[in-house]
Amino acid sequence: MDASDTLTLPYAPAEEKRPSRRIPVAVLGATGSVGQRFVQLLDGHPWFKLHEVVASDRSAGRPYAEAAEWRLDMLLPTDAAALEVKLLGADLESPLLFSGLDSSVAGEAEDDYANRGCVVVSNSRNHRMDPDVPLLIPELNADHIGAIDRQRKRRGGHGYIVTNPNCSVVGLAMAIAPIERLHGIEELHVTTMQAISGAGYAGVASYAILDNVIPYIGSGEEEKIESEPQKILGRWDGERFIDAPFRISAQVNRVPTIDGHLMTISMRLRSSNSVNLDQLRVAIDDFRGEPQVLGLPTAPRKPIHYVHGDDRPQPRLDRDRERGMSVSVGRLRPCPLLDLRMVALVHNTIRGAAGAAILNAELLEAKGLL
Amino acid sequence: MDASDTLTLPYAPAEEKRPSRRIPVAVLGATGSVGQRFVQLLDGHPWFKLHEVVASDRSAGRPYAEAAEWRLDMLLPTDAAALEVKLLGADLESPLLFSGLDSSVAGEAEDDYANRGCVVVSNSRNHRMDPDVPLLIPELNADHIGAIDRQRKRRGGHGYIVTNPNCSVVGLAMAIAPIERLHGIEELHVTTMQAISGAGYAGVASYAILDNVIPYIGSGEEEKIESEPQKILGRWDGERFIDAPFRISAQVNRVPTIDGHLMTISMRLRSSNSVNLDQLRVAIDDFRGEPQVLGLPTAPRKPIHYVHGDDRPQPRLDRDRERGMSVSVGRLRPCPLLDLRMVALVHNTIRGAAGAAILNAELLEAKGLL
Amino acid sequence: MDASDTLTLPYAPAEEKRPSRRIPVAVLGATGSVGQRFVQLLDGHPWFKLHEVVASDRSAGRPYAEAAEWRLDMLLPTDAAALEVKLLGADLESPLLFSGLDSSVAGEAEDDYANRGCVVVSNSRNHRMDPDVPLLIPELNADHIGAIDRQRKRRGGHGYIVTNPNCSVVGLAMAIAPIERLHGIEELHVTTMQAISGAGYAGVASYAILDNVIPYIGSGEEEKIESEPQKILGRWDGERFIDAPFRISAQVNRVPTIDGHLMTISMRLRSSNSVNLDQLRVAIDDFRGEPQVLGLPTAPRKPIHYVHGDDRPQPRLDRDRERGMSVSVGRLRPCPLLDLRMVALVHNTIRGAAGAAILNAELLEAKGLL
Amino acid sequence: MDASDTLTLPYAPAEEKRPSRRIPVAVLGATGSVGQRFVQLLDGHPWFKLHEVVASDRSAGRPYAEAAEWRLDMLLPTDAAALEVKLLGADLESPLLFSGLDSSVAGEAEDDYANRGCVVVSNSRNHRMDPDVPLLIPELNADHIGAIDRQRKRRGGHGYIVTNPNCSVVGLAMAIAPIERLHGIEELHVTTMQAISGAGYAGVASYAILDNVIPYIGSGEEEKIESEPQKILGRWDGERFIDAPFRISAQVNRVPTIDGHLMTISMRLRSSNSVNLDQLRVAIDDFRGEPQVLGLPTAPRKPIHYVHGDDRPQPRLDRDRERGMSVSVGRLRPCPLLDLRMVALVHNTIRGAAGAAILNAELLEAKGLL
Repeated sequence: MDASDTLTLPYAPAEEKRPSRRIPVAVLGATGSVGQRFVQLLDGHPWFKLHEVVASDRSAGRPYAEAAEWRLDMLLPTDAAALEVKLLGADLESPLLFSGLDSSVAGEAEDDYANRGCVVVSNSRNHRMDPDVPLLIPELNADHIGAIDRQRKRRGGHGYIVTNPNCSVVGLAMAIAPIERLHGIEELHVTTMQAISGAGYAGVASYAILDNVIPYIGSGEEEKIESEPQKILGRWDGERFIDAPFRISAQVNRVPTIDGHLMTISMRLRSSNSVNLDQLRVAIDDFRGEPQVLGLPTAPRKPIHYVHGDDRPQPRLDRDRERGMSVSVGRLRPCPLLDLRMVALVHNTIRGAAGAAILNAELLEAKGLL
Repeated sequence: MDASDTLTLPYAPAEEKRPSRRIPVAVLGATGSVGQRFVQLLDGHPWFKLHEVVASDRSAGRPYAEAAEWRLDMLLPTDAAALEVKLLGADLESPLLFSGLDSSVAGEAEDDYANRGCVVVSNSRNHRMDPDVPLLIPELNADHIGAIDRQRKRRGGHGYIVTNPNCSVVGLAMAIAPIERLHGIEELHVTTMQAISGAGYAGVASYAILDNVIPYIGSGEEEKIESEPQKILGRWDGERFIDAPFRISAQVNRVPTIDGHLMTISMRLRSSNSVNLDQLRVAIDDFRGEPQVLGLPTAPRKPIHYVHGDDRPQPRLDRDRERGMSVSVGRLRPCPLLDLRMVALVHNTIRGAAGAAILNAELLEAKGLL
Repeated sequence: MDASDTLTLPYAPAEEKRPSRRIPVAVLGATGSVGQRFVQLLDGHPWFKLHEVVASDRSAGRPYAEAAEWRLDMLLPTDAAALEVKLLGADLESPLLFSGLDSSVAGEAEDDYANRGCVVVSNSRNHRMDPDVPLLIPELNADHIGAIDRQRKRRGGHGYIVTNPNCSVVGLAMAIAPIERLHGIEELHVTTMQAISGAGYAGVASYAILDNVIPYIGSGEEEKIESEPQKILGRWDGERFIDAPFRISAQVNRVPTIDGHLMTISMRLRSSNSVNLDQLRVAIDDFRGEPQVLGLPTAPRKPIHYVHGDDRPQPRLDRDRERGMSVSVGRLRPCPLLDLRMVALVHNTIRGAAGAAILNAELLEAKGLL
Repeated sequence: MDASDTLTLPYAPAEEKRPSRRIPVAVLGATGSVGQRFVQLLDGHPWFKLHEVVASDRSAGRPYAEAAEWRLDMLLPTDAAALEVKLLGADLESPLLFSGLDSSVAGEAEDDYANRGCVVVSNSRNHRMDPDVPLLIPELNADHIGAIDRQRKRRGGHGYIVTNPNCSVVGLAMAIAPIERLHGIEELHVTTMQAISGAGYAGVASYAILDNVIPYIGSGEEEKIESEPQKILGRWDGERFIDAPFRISAQVNRVPTIDGHLMTISMRLRSSNSVNLDQLRVAIDDFRGEPQVLGLPTAPRKPIHYVHGDDRPQPRLDRDRERGMSVSVGRLRPCPLLDLRMVALVHNTIRGAAGAAILNAELLEAKGLL
């Protein structure tokens, strides 16, 4: 663990596996908050080059710099600023589309582009639970890309959709994955404390959240947290996804933090008698997956950081580890009712949204699926 | 439910049961944050009159107005301002002492005053679990004052100590009491999101908590939440306290709210087959206890408000119900793992601290124990 | 200065000058944030009775409880909850209308009702600078109601409009009024730090303001602050308003506070050689106006509180003085460049908006103008 | 202006003027908040190598990792973590000392080390106004290092002290420097809105500042802002510092932001008739100084960024420009009373403190003064 974690350039300068030329990509929903993160994270990407920005609303036809009302604390990349916003539904030149579309339009639009032959890497919730659409976290279930072949057959062409999970689910699934693999999880309780950025730029009024906590998120948030992890930690058997057999109870809260979803977790294991907490902490910190093996450009060195200290992880201190791509876990300790308790943290707009999708696309490229 | 809830004067103008003259009281630890709340809440109290302010530190001998560095948004009461701060340990004229002492000194000092014949109504944690010291919430366990007789015998005089629970525990115990009585609770998970005022004026640095959540409170907070409710919801059998037989797992967090501890709760019942959620919501809202029967001056009309709405209760909107003396409960719904889930809120420095102690003292007066 | 300031009931129980029966009133724009404050402050008002709620949008026809999405930390008054929302423009039964309409519709709608014979007491900016419309702060310029006669003639009936100033201007004008009267003000610089509630419920996104300050308010805020005080502190000469002859430079900022606009002020006096700071502090604190003489129900005992202490006034500690109806002033001291500097604070949604309008209406009633 | 501004490594990889070997340096007051920033910013510095950490308190003798209670969102550098904390006053091996000492001890300790032959680059206020101590902002007054020769004579050796200004003053002086040079400033009003980190880790209690603004900073903050800029923008005539002849009125406020001091400024110019706002905006943005000419490692490419947009600069969006080393200016516009108004922003703990001192030391090295 060293200071360079957050100081390194977003992408390693020397990269073996890079494609011979950068792949042109489009961002759907480019003016929204997830779309802006896509634009920011794609700036300087070694494999992908932002070529088109697409929006469904009145911003079509205007320069992106003007349409976006850029909100991030990173400056708007110069190249992106000059792009003209295209209307959702228009024919696109890019073979790879990142979708940050609102769920009110994502379902149909993503299907449409996939049927036209595009690869759609989506952050939207609409197709996550489709029976032949991977719900990908490359460190956990890279094998789920096996479903793409079946999906392509259904669509009758090259195009397909892959999705990344709900922002809280990314944190939860990654945090529990090493434990699930070693000891099996039977059931878990999770209470989330979610940052305002999860609701998009204008999603949470300041008058609603200053000096306050709201014990509700809306949009079936608890239901997503209770159902997506089983698909993610399950397996693709060549025909269908087989869910992992644990059950979840989720209670969600909005808190006045800017970025970073924090969550307390309590879980019952299938085999708890062999648990050694110190070994388990090391196993969590040592966890590696396909992106680390493949050296994907956006992959963190360590997908999960076990953070020592009674009062960690904390959103402001830990969310930016490895440019927001690592999940942090701490306070692993026994539970008086179940077996284990712990605290987990995920940067909701990076690892939990745009960064997750970009890592997914990198996996697809590395596996020859673009 | 009406607007007058938060508009009424702190104490009803006409009050039948009031003592013939106001009882002189002292506040121990009067310059601290709990002590200041005592001073504020005692202003205009119909039964008690602030007569002495006591502190353990260098403020002894100075006028209270100068020593207190008054922090509350209520103005410092004129009468209190002029009192000279007495040194902890000095002989006091008041027969009734409210203690907001820091736990580093409370244990010995409270014992000492009780042994000298004073009635000590304490907010400190030191004596809460003593085998003959009531851990009182008058709506729940007014019968626990039966232990006073035994305690007086031990001390050989008139003096004794009663305590109120940890601030989070007040909220938790009150919120679950109606359910415990109707259906029996077997076990529960609780995750708290606690306000900064719970740590005292200087307890949480702004640099630590702005744009942040800290998954830790310190001082055995989780242990207190896991053990105090069993004593509170248990009974005094004439010889000893018999704990209620449920088990608790508590995970605590500090969030950037000023007042009001919010908590998510999931519980398993002893008899769950007869639960009707609508009836249970009414039962929670209809819950009444001894303070309501006796018409104690600080008693809320309703100890628990069941708050409808998917996103309630919320600290800023609901903490001040009935001058901060009511607990709010909402989102009662089934749990996929256990039986019931809900959200509860308590004003931590009023119902959870100084107001709790004052209500305790009112019960003692009404029962002829002063 | 005593604790009862913030503890008193909103309206004094015994009131001499009250009308024989409560006057039925309507609130225009009742579902907005200013409208909700009107509804809250009118609850229990001794002279006025909320009779109609009016809105311009799709909420017409629905019960107010459902249409309002009530946001205040006070509970929605029961009587108001049951009222059916009327459509803006409909004939109203109430002779007195409080307007919290958005400025996009207020101009025409208020004119329309005034021309139909209603008395419109408005918080909107549209008619503030009209040559026969009083811009009232009853403590400062009660004589401006002389313009009503002329306005009635123009409209050809009983109806007319009176307005209250911009929320920051109320604080500024009240804070400087005693100094203007004693020493004359020639020019002043003011920098405001304004609370989020000034922008209405959804006005400021939390993602925009958490851990941030925005040096801009929009809507000509600086221009209003630079021009309204001259009309307020000027006089009605029987024919027209004669502006007070000082000049203002205003710079505005949005800060992450919930209620209470704080401002730093530096001013040059016309006659500075006789200034005695201690006497001036007393003069500010002793300032009284027509509402205090008339004993209007909403009038604060002291319109301005001079708050001692190097670090006061502060929004959270001082905004609620006298139920939010008093302005607080502190840190009066010399300016190295001009003559005097000071800090002022106003509760922007009470004294700076709905409370201001209600006090205006009380003045009109006391003066026989309803 | 491009996204790479905040993405670049802290120090350029190829650097011509670097010393043949890295100079060992010590940090005085290393466990405090400024000291921690020194440690963070020195990590990987191409010219300086952290060799010793020094503290005045009980942390002496302990490993830095344990003594520091590291608070920054950057991880504690590995090399620093292992250093043993030395006691203030001990003999040090490093010829160059960075001082983040508290002003209660800085005065004597810095003098002592300078008299022993060390070069002390201090962020403390104690020696800023000494007649032979440079108060340096290298972009503005690199010529002030002429005073070092005289100071060395006084001390009778190689050692000397240079200081950087108060954090707000760095922002103010840099923001007005291009205007002062082009048009001359006669007088100015400034109101600051300062971040909590300016008070050190535990300096501002969260209970004091959440939902609040405090119109006071303490420690003669206003006096420093009113007097330091004249020395900075003045000149060294070979014998003494000749102050720039303008006058300042400063009013200060603490606001709930984490980093970044924002300020509104209004100023009267000596020659205002030739002002062209567009040209002046360009001049501000084009401003360069000695660090840019010399290519100092910590120097920003542009010392001042003129930020367009009605509502900019904002602390959260603009404070990190060029790794926190650039000041941001916006809203340049006429003032109704004086000539010009504008808004300025400085990252108070980087450009306003530790980063300022490191840039000072780089200037000294580049000029052969170490």
